[in-house]
Amino acid sequence: MEMKPWQEVAQRAQAYRDKSIAEINPPIPAVPEELPQNVTHLPKQLLTPREVEITEMLPEELLPALADGKLTSVEVINAFVRRAGLAQQLVNCVTEIMVPQALERAKYCDEYLAKHGRPIGPLHGLPISVKEHIGMKGLTQNCGFVAWIDEVAKEDAFILTLLHNAGAVFYVRTTEPQLLMHLETASNLYGVTVNPYNRALTSGGSSGGEGALLGLRGSCLGIGTDIGGSIRSPAANNGVWGFRPSSYRLPNSGAHAPGLGEEQIVPVIGPMSTSFAGLNVFMKTIIDQKPWLNEPSMVPLKWNTAESHLVERFGQRKLKVGIMWHDGVVKPHPPIMRALTEMAAKLKKTPGIEVVDWAPHKHEESWDIISSLYFCASAKEDMDIMEAGGEPILPLSKFILLEQSGVPQEEDIASTIWKKTIRREAFKTEYAAHWNATGAADGHPVDVILCPVGPGAAPPLDHSRYWAYTSTWNLLDYPAMVFPYSQVDQEKDKADEGYVPMNDQDDWNHKLYSPERYADAPISLQLVGRRCEDEKVFEAMQFIRIATGV
Amino acid sequence: MEMKPWQEVAQRAQAYRDKSIAEINPPIPAVPEELPQNVTHLPKQLLTPREVEITEMLPEELLPALADGKLTSVEVINAFVRRAGLAQQLVNCVTEIMVPQALERAKYCDEYLAKHGRPIGPLHGLPISVKEHIGMKGLTQNCGFVAWIDEVAKEDAFILTLLHNAGAVFYVRTTEPQLLMHLETASNLYGVTVNPYNRALTSGGSSGGEGALLGLRGSCLGIGTDIGGSIRSPAANNGVWGFRPSSYRLPNSGAHAPGLGEEQIVPVIGPMSTSFAGLNVFMKTIIDQKPWLNEPSMVPLKWNTAESHLVERFGQRKLKVGIMWHDGVVKPHPPIMRALTEMAAKLKKTPGIEVVDWAPHKHEESWDIISSLYFCASAKEDMDIMEAGGEPILPLSKFILLEQSGVPQEEDIASTIWKKTIRREAFKTEYAAHWNATGAADGHPVDVILCPVGPGAAPPLDHSRYWAYTSTWNLLDYPAMVFPYSQVDQEKDKADEGYVPMNDQDDWNHKLYSPERYADAPISLQLVGRRCEDEKVFEAMQFIRIATGV
Repeated sequence: MEMKPWQEVAQRAQAYRDKSIAEINPPIPAVPEELPQNVTHLPKQLLTPREVEITEMLPEELLPALADGKLTSVEVINAFVRRAGLAQQLVNCVTEIMVPQALERAKYCDEYLAKHGRPIGPLHGLPISVKEHIGMKGLTQNCGFVAWIDEVAKEDAFILTLLHNAGAVFYVRTTEPQLLMHLETASNLYGVTVNPYNRALTSGGSSGGEGALLGLRGSCLGIGTDIGGSIRSPAANNGVWGFRPSSYRLPNSGAHAPGLGEEQIVPVIGPMSTSFAGLNVFMKTIIDQKPWLNEPSMVPLKWNTAESHLVERFGQRKLKVGIMWHDGVVKPHPPIMRALTEMAAKLKKTPGIEVVDWAPHKHEESWDIISSLYFCASAKEDMDIMEAGGEPILPLSKFILLEQSGVPQEEDIASTIWKKTIRREAFKTEYAAHWNATGAADGHPVDVILCPVGPGAAPPLDHSRYWAYTSTWNLLDYPAMVFPYSQVDQEKDKADEGYVPMNDQDDWNHKLYSPERYADAPISLQLVGRRCEDEKVFEAMQFIRIATGV
Repeated sequence: MEMKPWQEVAQRAQAYRDKSIAEINPPIPAVPEELPQNVTHLPKQLLTPREVEITEMLPEELLPALADGKLTSVEVINAFVRRAGLAQQLVNCVTEIMVPQALERAKYCDEYLAKHGRPIGPLHGLPISVKEHIGMKGLTQNCGFVAWIDEVAKEDAFILTLLHNAGAVFYVRTTEPQLLMHLETASNLYGVTVNPYNRALTSGGSSGGEGALLGLRGSCLGIGTDIGGSIRSPAANNGVWGFRPSSYRLPNSGAHAPGLGEEQIVPVIGPMSTSFAGLNVFMKTIIDQKPWLNEPSMVPLKWNTAESHLVERFGQRKLKVGIMWHDGVVKPHPPIMRALTEMAAKLKKTPGIEVVDWAPHKHEESWDIISSLYFCASAKEDMDIMEAGGEPILPLSKFILLEQSGVPQEEDIASTIWKKTIRREAFKTEYAAHWNATGAADGHPVDVILCPVGPGAAPPLDHSRYWAYTSTWNLLDYPAMVFPYSQVDQEKDKADEGYVPMNDQDDWNHKLYSPERYADAPISLQLVGRRCEDEKVFEAMQFIRIATGV
């Protein structure tokens, strides 16, 4: 059968990826021809015990071992490179593995430590995985577009330079969806990235390559981006930690995307990790370098979890947690409701924590506004890029580009955008008033909101069509952390047969669920703070971890 | 002669203003039929000694006297109302004086103090003047447009609520130019606001009503707005203090303007005052109320001049002042160069201060970028409003709307705006690198830049056509303070006959100058800091005041 031109491009991209993986030494082991639905146990069977031991260490375990030479960076990198290569065979989450560059860098780290007797910086020798559209000098930066396969980054993204300064080792680049705008990860270039816990479910997206790789422990710390849930959806779906910072707290420059220069909804870069500490060391390491002196749109705020100068401290009073059970539009599936119920019960029992209900405030409108602003110039630029590549428009590209009422199909006149922006600001102001009032009878409104990350655990492929549990916080520019809680349980998480849906969307979502369909899927929750109170989210999460053991 | 409809509207606006002034009791004294060129001495002749004494007190003198009851707010307001009414007769700087409301409020303040034994807040009883387009509930908010005469604010601008909370008394609203986008103040509604030091020169703009009123001591603290120099030009031209904060440090909501919702260049509200302390109490009073909890686009940074958590402190080393003698495009007139030279000499003699040269970096390009972004949707909205009012387009409206190359005349497609925004960001990044490098041999780059506010003292009317000494800092979003230095001196400030201009613009500006033409004009300078280092500008200014006596 003759291949279309876009298929030839895809073949070339995949051949390049496979060649990069073939450089792994020793070669990665063969995987079973018929993969089981849940592949999370396979790395343990197929890698050496030492490789398994290293790759299952958390960042806070690896970093001190690397800093004092108990582990060499070369050994650590070799182990993660092997596990990442294997992860690619299991869930298709990688666009390339840079074996020679990573090993050279790891060797440099080891030599530096030997020579100077001290680590390069707080990330000395640590492997870090990177989403593809974050530029690496000399490498493709295609954003999931066929037409962009030969777009090559002229220099490293600024955030990579900062991580490099701190001693990090980059070794793998990860998949993302066509257009970067799905809460799943499928592109014509690399195909579909699936969920390691259940290959019939999505890894989430758009940082779904990161999510799946972290879920399989082929990475312990990676870089995602988020404009509507793209860090939090894959973190939740793969049972790992993810953090969407407030905008302008981490540097964005060097990340490629359509619509660069658009600021109505600001995308952010953020960490994904196998641990809470991984998120924190990422934030702290970057912000401690005062990146605003070079990227001046950033807010010049120090990273200060020890003594926050931004927010009123809750040391002298109870931490007040608002629980948003659902958003008033789509009720999450039973596993999510169980997680919230169990967490609420634990929190209520904890001295020092007060729990109140958080009423959702016009979350349906939040989706109207944000979806009208994502492509406020028009859908045309993205449509043109897909046309230039001659590639099919994937279903979830069609969903976000062509099926949302506010997206202009022809290039829009600019002045209509200001009107949408005014609507955004009005919504933000209203929500601030809602926050100021909630639980504030004693003068202290809620500190953080605990809520679902989505309307269920990882959706079946091509079913991630309800963004508002994450995108509302993008619209409001609230920092939000995702943490793993449990997994779908066939006994505990029966379908709610008697449920009367609130509307068509809710009905659609309700019917999607059965415990069998979502078997083994991770269950995660989200902790949300006010804008620029990123540190408070970390502090509250730390408190909640102690209280609940998550 | 038959009046055109717009002239009837203007007559109505002026009649309304005059009626409001007629409510002052005792009535304001008549002014000479033929006004002298310099009218700054007239208030002393025409008001009572007690009125002169009160209105010439600075905010830092009035506030403690009001707080402990040595002065009543009623007496203070009466004095300022009289002087403001007189200022209107001399320079045409007022759109209305709210006599009954102000007196009622002043009475409330006095009664509150008597009853509670403590002031309402840090601005107890203090009169504050307000630029017209900052909304006051129930009053017109026309932005200098005939067509908008009947636009009435539905509620007070948020910043007014915060000042009210602190005890302020609003008593006068001040003029602004057609379109809000001149560095002068002329509208078809209210005519031309002139400079009290020399009525042939401009008061500056767009906060030129504030500038002229403060210059005549008809106010001691007022509110301006600045998107290209609109606080700093009138502060400089009238010999008073002005501060343009970094964006999102003071709340903007409730200020009316064309193009609301546009964020490519963010307008800011800021204080203008007869004293440095006036600027500081304004910033501190507002920010201390945590306005970001209600206006969530603000950056949640405390006002902290005592111990800044944002910036490296210069207590342990010398304050490093960069002097930008000129911007490489248009050289300022002799009075400005003299002021800079004298200041530099004083600073160099001061232990604890180091002076280095600041090389201008592509300031011509900065104007290209910012002028293309002011009306990046198009000139059409503004043109339509003027057409709707049937009013003539004033020369400086034509200059900024129709004579700048980057302003689209038809409504532009949005995606071109993103390209301009990328250019803006690239310029900011380059300028940050320039700052990081300047004077940084010892590891500490310059702390602040001392530079001109414009290419001369207050220009002759309709000649304010070079914005870049102020607008460059808007593009970069740097905080900038204007302070009075001296006045044009017929002996010291001779024209530089042998000067060879750098280009046509420079030639035009050079030929504009003669000491006679600029007789008595105030000379002011500008102190500029990095983005969000607003407090550092205040700290550095305080140090420089002690060193130089300004």
